[in-house]
Amino acid sequence: MTFGSTIAATNSDLLSPDLGNRLHAFVSELYPICSSITGNGLREILRRIGQRIPLQIHEVPTGTQAFDWIVPREWNIRDAYVQNSRGEKIIDFKSSNLHVMNYSVPVNAKLSLEELKPHLYTLPDRPDWIPYRTSYYRETWGFCLTQRQLDSLPEDEYEVVIDSSLEDGSLTYAECLIQGKSREEILISCHACHPSLCNDNLSGLAVATFLAQVLAGTEPRFSYRFLFIPGTIGSISWLSRNENVVPRIKHGLVLACVGDPGAFSYKKSRRGNTEIDRAFLHLLAASGNPYNVRDFSPYGYDERQYCSPGFNLPVGSLNRTQHGKFPEYHTSADNLSFVTPESLASTLHFCLEVFRLLENNLTYLNLNPKCEPQLGKRGLYRLMGGLPDAGTRELAMLWTLNLSDGNHSLLDIAERSSLHFDVILQATRDLEQAGLLSSQTR
Amino acid sequence: MTFGSTIAATNSDLLSPDLGNRLHAFVSELYPICSSITGNGLREILRRIGQRIPLQIHEVPTGTQAFDWIVPREWNIRDAYVQNSRGEKIIDFKSSNLHVMNYSVPVNAKLSLEELKPHLYTLPDRPDWIPYRTSYYRETWGFCLTQRQLDSLPEDEYEVVIDSSLEDGSLTYAECLIQGKSREEILISCHACHPSLCNDNLSGLAVATFLAQVLAGTEPRFSYRFLFIPGTIGSISWLSRNENVVPRIKHGLVLACVGDPGAFSYKKSRRGNTEIDRAFLHLLAASGNPYNVRDFSPYGYDERQYCSPGFNLPVGSLNRTQHGKFPEYHTSADNLSFVTPESLASTLHFCLEVFRLLENNLTYLNLNPKCEPQLGKRGLYRLMGGLPDAGTRELAMLWTLNLSDGNHSLLDIAERSSLHFDVILQATRDLEQAGLLSSQTR
Amino acid sequence: MTFGSTIAATNSDLLSPDLGNRLHAFVSELYPICSSITGNGLREILRRIGQRIPLQIHEVPTGTQAFDWIVPREWNIRDAYVQNSRGEKIIDFKSSNLHVMNYSVPVNAKLSLEELKPHLYTLPDRPDWIPYRTSYYRETWGFCLTQRQLDSLPEDEYEVVIDSSLEDGSLTYAECLIQGKSREEILISCHACHPSLCNDNLSGLAVATFLAQVLAGTEPRFSYRFLFIPGTIGSISWLSRNENVVPRIKHGLVLACVGDPGAFSYKKSRRGNTEIDRAFLHLLAASGNPYNVRDFSPYGYDERQYCSPGFNLPVGSLNRTQHGKFPEYHTSADNLSFVTPESLASTLHFCLEVFRLLENNLTYLNLNPKCEPQLGKRGLYRLMGGLPDAGTRELAMLWTLNLSDGNHSLLDIAERSSLHFDVILQATRDLEQAGLLSSQTR
Repeated sequence: MTFGSTIAATNSDLLSPDLGNRLHAFVSELYPICSSITGNGLREILRRIGQRIPLQIHEVPTGTQAFDWIVPREWNIRDAYVQNSRGEKIIDFKSSNLHVMNYSVPVNAKLSLEELKPHLYTLPDRPDWIPYRTSYYRETWGFCLTQRQLDSLPEDEYEVVIDSSLEDGSLTYAECLIQGKSREEILISCHACHPSLCNDNLSGLAVATFLAQVLAGTEPRFSYRFLFIPGTIGSISWLSRNENVVPRIKHGLVLACVGDPGAFSYKKSRRGNTEIDRAFLHLLAASGNPYNVRDFSPYGYDERQYCSPGFNLPVGSLNRTQHGKFPEYHTSADNLSFVTPESLASTLHFCLEVFRLLENNLTYLNLNPKCEPQLGKRGLYRLMGGLPDAGTRELAMLWTLNLSDGNHSLLDIAERSSLHFDVILQATRDLEQAGLLSSQTR
Repeated sequence: MTFGSTIAATNSDLLSPDLGNRLHAFVSELYPICSSITGNGLREILRRIGQRIPLQIHEVPTGTQAFDWIVPREWNIRDAYVQNSRGEKIIDFKSSNLHVMNYSVPVNAKLSLEELKPHLYTLPDRPDWIPYRTSYYRETWGFCLTQRQLDSLPEDEYEVVIDSSLEDGSLTYAECLIQGKSREEILISCHACHPSLCNDNLSGLAVATFLAQVLAGTEPRFSYRFLFIPGTIGSISWLSRNENVVPRIKHGLVLACVGDPGAFSYKKSRRGNTEIDRAFLHLLAASGNPYNVRDFSPYGYDERQYCSPGFNLPVGSLNRTQHGKFPEYHTSADNLSFVTPESLASTLHFCLEVFRLLENNLTYLNLNPKCEPQLGKRGLYRLMGGLPDAGTRELAMLWTLNLSDGNHSLLDIAERSSLHFDVILQATRDLEQAGLLSSQTR
Repeated sequence: MTFGSTIAATNSDLLSPDLGNRLHAFVSELYPICSSITGNGLREILRRIGQRIPLQIHEVPTGTQAFDWIVPREWNIRDAYVQNSRGEKIIDFKSSNLHVMNYSVPVNAKLSLEELKPHLYTLPDRPDWIPYRTSYYRETWGFCLTQRQLDSLPEDEYEVVIDSSLEDGSLTYAECLIQGKSREEILISCHACHPSLCNDNLSGLAVATFLAQVLAGTEPRFSYRFLFIPGTIGSISWLSRNENVVPRIKHGLVLACVGDPGAFSYKKSRRGNTEIDRAFLHLLAASGNPYNVRDFSPYGYDERQYCSPGFNLPVGSLNRTQHGKFPEYHTSADNLSFVTPESLASTLHFCLEVFRLLENNLTYLNLNPKCEPQLGKRGLYRLMGGLPDAGTRELAMLWTLNLSDGNHSLLDIAERSSLHFDVILQATRDLEQAGLLSSQTR
């Protein structure tokens, strides 16, 4: 049974019309949790994902070496606020997780406005938005607030409280492995460390969770490994603990910022012409919708680590609007209304299309390589001659036969013929059934 | 003696100004014959060609296996008509070969208009033209007629007669081999199975016949093999019987639709960058006339078979307007006025230019590779210095010397220097005569 | 100490703001001398250069074989004029070296205007300019003059005197070798045979002389060999006597026509993608100024010989306006006002930029190839997270780490990252200092 038909058969309910709404509801469920690269917020995010798919949770102790890095102390936060002399909380963590610089050390002090200001972060250009700031590797504290809030602060004595802890503990990440027929893997990685930012990256978490759910019901050719990890230190930790898995990764994808209404933007792997790169390019071009393809650069998300020279994995990254290219990026405006059910659902569908292509991208051998076989006598070709054009289906069969010399995968054939992969795939199945092609293990 | 000068010396009469008229007259001579993929019409076509060039006729018996195909029964037709109740022949094979669907089985029946209609083929968009239809591999019968004829048919009882036979016999094709100095061959193939269609492909037959006539008077480097064959089954039959010849084919060309007034359109071989592909591209670009170059696709004429993966021969195809891209294609409008003497003659001349390039495209070795040789003392370079530009002839010598390192053919040099192949060829001859170059056998 | 900083430290006076004026003054100093491919004029040019840089002078005797060429007899000229019957010198070598066709044989005769005219050369299109003409390899004589002069000549008996000699002697050329740490060489070649033409090529001589002066104060990685030679026969003679040096030439540059106000025009080496070709392309593109890049052709200056197939050296050519593309080319209008101090100085600076790139274009190895190293803890990366963009410096470090897999030089990294070579170089130094990179000997 083919991957595509398996999905249709066993998971049609998962792909029902309200898919987008369900994805958005999951984003909403995760939105209030204050995640970080360690700590209980991150654990809660992973627990919620684990309610939907089989998840293996890993705890990596503080101080563990991961290549050049050391797993930091664990950060937890209970409360934080700035209170004026009248006892009013004028900045309150309880109203937005973004108000506290992530990884702020504990503080409990009374400060003048002048003393407070160096610890306050705003976006002067976007006076109503709260920025998102972190300080994982330098011990400091800070508050983020809107420019309007800042402008309205009078001289006063402020009580500043951050009830956080930074202590030995562990870094948490989670894996979901969907076992396929082969031990060869497709890696899907998304960062889970950002608090209360919907596009970056609750969107990626939601899409990946639902992808795992859909795939769990199929018998795919590849095994699929989903990683839900804190950015940078998470992928570095995973790679350092899984060097034996790395050689099995045939294709990989980092999912981030996949819920906004923008067009798809695909970032190629460092190698630049891997099968997953070409799969995305083919399907994006065939989609008829606007899209964007970027060459690899070593700045972005965890593809930085997967594509570091010591690994150089065939891992691309799918986004809608690219990080840093939408003004809402890393601000309180990356909220529940910035990501849409339609975008979330179409990202999921597009990923499934790509996986389906990769699953089916085999190389076949024309068993009758000298001249064309007689398709007409097999019912595969029209019988009346003289018409000016061949149909697409006939062309697809002719291309598939012509290029199935053992050196061309179906994607190669689709690219060269300018026909859609699915059309070539259907031709392949018809020809295989007629005994004219045999599949080659690659 | 060079190929070019040999042609001029021995065949100047063949290339005289009325060449186009003689080509067109030959098309006119073949036009009334009802050809098909087998049978006496095809034999008559080949007999007429054989009156002009030495031709070896082959008969392949019905039932012979040719790779995946079986040579079909032989079809012959003597008469066919549809007669109304008043005894008037309202469709008459004698007035156009196209009126009968090619390979129609015998029929002798009285039918109502309703019973007749499923057997009638028209072109609603071109109400005055008769379409060309075939049914080689499904036993049926049919008549082709103009839409106006069809529209004017009243209810009546029609007498339908097709006096044809479909019986064991043989498939006929012909070869003309012009022996050259080398056993390496240039293959020219054209299909001879279409009845009363001037561009597709009486034009190809006429040009190929005249090419063979011209070449027969020369001592070419390559041997030239001309095939006059029924489409598809003919080339498949030839290939299946001549696998030993295949390795000797260095270049090949399918000639079809070469008489209409459109610009040249060259379709590349499957390999896409063979010497004949590059020869056509160079000379088409140098011609200064509009032209068209298409990548290989496995749809078209017999290049489909020559370029099947089991052979993958360096065979391109020359057309003027591409099959299926002119409305007259496969209709009664592909008649004697659709092909012009000028187009036929210029196709022949262009093919000779291409052959001349291939004949002369050797690799030479600069015998004085360190620094330039002193051309001035040999009378090959102007003696006064200080002028701002070199002449084309001097540039051609400098390029030829610079690139004749054993790795560049003359066509390579022409491509890189953007000079015409003939200019490079002349420079090569001058330099060879001066003892500065020696030819390398490739 | 790096090449760049060495220049700054020891030669800042050489690169002072009046550099252009000093270059132009040197052109002015050489302008009155009547150079040729042999003789005392050429020797005087080289003597003046030798007053500024350490120069080794070579004399190659007449009759010496140099590959296909023979060193010609030596030409010297003392005086030349055409005098009318009233005793007036109407053409006088003393007023312009260009008036005498270079290499004219001695003559002392009385001629009518009709007899004289075949020996007179003008530029009808530029009636006020004197052309530059030579006749090195055919014994003849001639005068060059303005069209206006020619038009004003009445019928008369003219006394024609050329007090020259063409006798066995020698061909003179000069070399300046700046020893570097490596025996690998960068070759800079410029022709010294043109008399009284400022752009072609007193500009090249001046820039090369000053380059040698600047480099002499440094400890470069490469050795730099400057050749001041007569065109064609000079480079051929040098190559024939220095075949043992040829394998050490890693990069080479022909300098000619580098003083006019036009944009830079770089002509690639025959190989077309050598390191010096790519260095020029990178720096020209990064300059923000208009520029021109030409593919190699075997017409031009001495790159013709260095790039002949028997040597095929990685030698490009830098010009401003290309020879033959400015109307002043090879005329008396290529004078002191045609070349500008600014252009001469900017050519010199640009050459130094290119040399600096070549000196520093090493390949490094990321010592921490699995995942990114933690730059933050080394003070190389900002510590606050969440900002939308990385800075250029951070990007440069990430690119350098990502591509330093042993297969990419710094220029490769600059090209792929679209960052300036200098930015990549700075990142490399920072990373090397932090112990994260080690240089590889190529």
